[in-house]
Amino acid sequence: MITFEIDKDSGIPVYLQIYSYIRDEIETGKIKSDEKLPSKRTLASHMNVSIVTVENAYGQLVAEGYIRSEAGRGFFAEKYEISVETEEKPKVSETYSEVKYNFGTNAADTSLFPFSVWAKLSRATLNEKTTDLLNSCDFRGLRQLREEISHHLRRFRGMDVSPDRIVIGAGSEYLIGMIIKLLGRDMAYGVENPGYRKIYDVFSINSSRVFPVPVDEQGASVSAISGFGINVLHVTPSHHFPLGVTMPVTRKQQLLKWSYEKSERYIIEDDCDCEFNYGSRPLPALQSYDRHGTVIYLNTFTRTIAPSVRIGYMILPERLMEKYNSKLSFYSCPVPVFEQFTLAKFISEGYFERHINRLKKVFRQRRDTLVNCIKNSPLAGVSQIFGDNSGIHILLKISNGMSQSELIETALKSGIKIHGISEYYSFPVYDIPENAVILGFSGIGCDDIAEAVEILSEIWKSED
Amino acid sequence: MITFEIDKDSGIPVYLQIYSYIRDEIETGKIKSDEKLPSKRTLASHMNVSIVTVENAYGQLVAEGYIRSEAGRGFFAEKYEISVETEEKPKVSETYSEVKYNFGTNAADTSLFPFSVWAKLSRATLNEKTTDLLNSCDFRGLRQLREEISHHLRRFRGMDVSPDRIVIGAGSEYLIGMIIKLLGRDMAYGVENPGYRKIYDVFSINSSRVFPVPVDEQGASVSAISGFGINVLHVTPSHHFPLGVTMPVTRKQQLLKWSYEKSERYIIEDDCDCEFNYGSRPLPALQSYDRHGTVIYLNTFTRTIAPSVRIGYMILPERLMEKYNSKLSFYSCPVPVFEQFTLAKFISEGYFERHINRLKKVFRQRRDTLVNCIKNSPLAGVSQIFGDNSGIHILLKISNGMSQSELIETALKSGIKIHGISEYYSFPVYDIPENAVILGFSGIGCDDIAEAVEILSEIWKSED
Repeated sequence: MITFEIDKDSGIPVYLQIYSYIRDEIETGKIKSDEKLPSKRTLASHMNVSIVTVENAYGQLVAEGYIRSEAGRGFFAEKYEISVETEEKPKVSETYSEVKYNFGTNAADTSLFPFSVWAKLSRATLNEKTTDLLNSCDFRGLRQLREEISHHLRRFRGMDVSPDRIVIGAGSEYLIGMIIKLLGRDMAYGVENPGYRKIYDVFSINSSRVFPVPVDEQGASVSAISGFGINVLHVTPSHHFPLGVTMPVTRKQQLLKWSYEKSERYIIEDDCDCEFNYGSRPLPALQSYDRHGTVIYLNTFTRTIAPSVRIGYMILPERLMEKYNSKLSFYSCPVPVFEQFTLAKFISEGYFERHINRLKKVFRQRRDTLVNCIKNSPLAGVSQIFGDNSGIHILLKISNGMSQSELIETALKSGIKIHGISEYYSFPVYDIPENAVILGFSGIGCDDIAEAVEILSEIWKSED
Repeated sequence: MITFEIDKDSGIPVYLQIYSYIRDEIETGKIKSDEKLPSKRTLASHMNVSIVTVENAYGQLVAEGYIRSEAGRGFFAEKYEISVETEEKPKVSETYSEVKYNFGTNAADTSLFPFSVWAKLSRATLNEKTTDLLNSCDFRGLRQLREEISHHLRRFRGMDVSPDRIVIGAGSEYLIGMIIKLLGRDMAYGVENPGYRKIYDVFSINSSRVFPVPVDEQGASVSAISGFGINVLHVTPSHHFPLGVTMPVTRKQQLLKWSYEKSERYIIEDDCDCEFNYGSRPLPALQSYDRHGTVIYLNTFTRTIAPSVRIGYMILPERLMEKYNSKLSFYSCPVPVFEQFTLAKFISEGYFERHINRLKKVFRQRRDTLVNCIKNSPLAGVSQIFGDNSGIHILLKISNGMSQSELIETALKSGIKIHGISEYYSFPVYDIPENAVILGFSGIGCDDIAEAVEILSEIWKSED
């Protein structure tokens, strides 16, 4: 009989846990081809879950071809050739065949991108540059692109940065890997908890000393950093994911002070989503306040151009740039010269800032729709919204008596995909908010938002 | 009418001479866009060559997009917008202001690359794919490209590899970093000594346990591996750099046997330069002999396409692919989707193999020129040539009483850049050959080779 422990705290819906368990058993051959599975009723009773939960799990397995249903006989494992077939095995949390409303936080709305402009600039690059496109560039990246990034940062972010200190790389995963090579893997690295799972994963695979830093209503907690003896702190001051906190200048100053207190202390400022600020003025970057060269600034074009364009950059303080130069300049810039030329054009000809403004407008509308719909629905009485003044997601706390997994599961049954906050705790803590969910709006339009909120307000009615 | 002198003694096939002549005329604008070319018959009679020869030349020009054939009307020059400066000396990463003859081993001759074809395919990619170019691909890389690589390896290298086990990355530096993340940085890694300096640097920055493996006349020494307790061995069996050794099958079998003897032993086969084999048949890859999944195969397009195209790939044994999937699939593929589509087209439409054949032909001519010039010069009496049966460099031992640095310095004073073998010993050994230098010919043409050898034979005269 199928037996495993359901993790009630994982935030992963129970039916998905059952689904993945059985899928794995089939893929590894532990459940043989044509083997009969327990009936829904038997399994439900055995696992102490509802029949509906088992139904959902079996339904998903049938849909994906792992098992088949034979009328009047029950469920049977399909023939499965044990191989690496990883292509068709996306992560559980990311796929659900019937999702109609996607509040996922990585969803990208590529229809917003001016592809025809990009294609036009790409063609121009092909015509204008020829051998330039075949020769490799500076290890820090193409000079033209570093200059354009420098100009953009001056205009858009008020930052004064020489192109000589900008290093271009293949996204933040790559750049963080390089930072750890630069500073040394034996430093104690602090990452926000909760935070982006991927960031935590990248730090853990590159260093053995990674510690959680709790996030309070102003951002990363200063006292916690000292407690763990952290040397290098990764923070997201513009808009914390998933809590939505924007770090006030007082906290920024406290963090800088911490970094100045001892030598070899650094802050990695991940300025992700700084472009999407709906308040009066964007707050200055931590990097702008830095007077002693302890801040490494990091940003990417993943959100602002496209996920497929793997270009990010970092700004190193002068001393670290010298160290990079002597220690890591044997690494070639991993981004093709062609993409760098095209992106440099896209920035220099004004398309990039126009596109950001457009995105910002669209996201603001979606944010407004989402917030207003919630406020004008029966959910208003049982919910609280956080982090809606910037970024592309909100945090929603629901006090209707339902647990986080119930919230997620009931939404998913109605075709609405949302994430629970507990997914983003890479380190377990005792006080994970039980009733908080994340609604991302980068991949869902206003009409769908309105429809989805209507459905949610129905299924999340207060249970009184 | 097209008129130039065919050089019957050059060793270059006549059709290629016609092809390059017309290509240059188009690139420099002497033949205008849409200008009609002479008919095959007319040109053949005019140049006093066979019609088949002209057909071959035109065929190549059509394939590379320089001219088009219009049914019933003949051949016309395609629109060609910018002149490729084919006469220009290729750029080299390490430039020396007065170097006239560059035997550097990283020099790239980008004029050999059919850029117009690449540009044509890039334009086609922009037209055919739109949103496909904006969405991210599988973490292993674009399916189409992995399939094309798999087909290419079957045709070209006799390897039978599922696209599911191919992982695309940003060059070998990136891929070796991922291999070390996969296997663990605490494994004992062995690198060939001498060998590529960059390979050693990448291993050292990613692991603290890197050991030298001496290379004898058959390749990496088996007894040395055991001595250091090495778990993972990096080797270059096709053509060792800088010694030029091609590993015989007996040594390959010995290495495989070593890898089977204990669990968690692996061989990283870097198949760099396997494309440039001038003997009867290319030797099978180590990977082809592997029966127990201990070989990780690695290759890149740096030499065969261009240094700026940062694309490489590795083939993982099934067990390691599963491990990669569970441990590292959170890393996105760092290569832009656009480049992957274009490269897939370049391979599937036959251009890649045609280009390799062309490169091989050119490099063989250069190799022949270099070897013959040396053999017919006064140097013959004081020198020995090694590693000339494949690859794009030779090792030259000079017994004229001069030290390695004297050899290099005197050459440089005459505008000739060569490298000494001692640069490639990452670990010091007591018996570094004092009089051995490396002559790379990837970035220097036949005429320059002949001139340079004449100068060398003068300045390296035996001192008696």
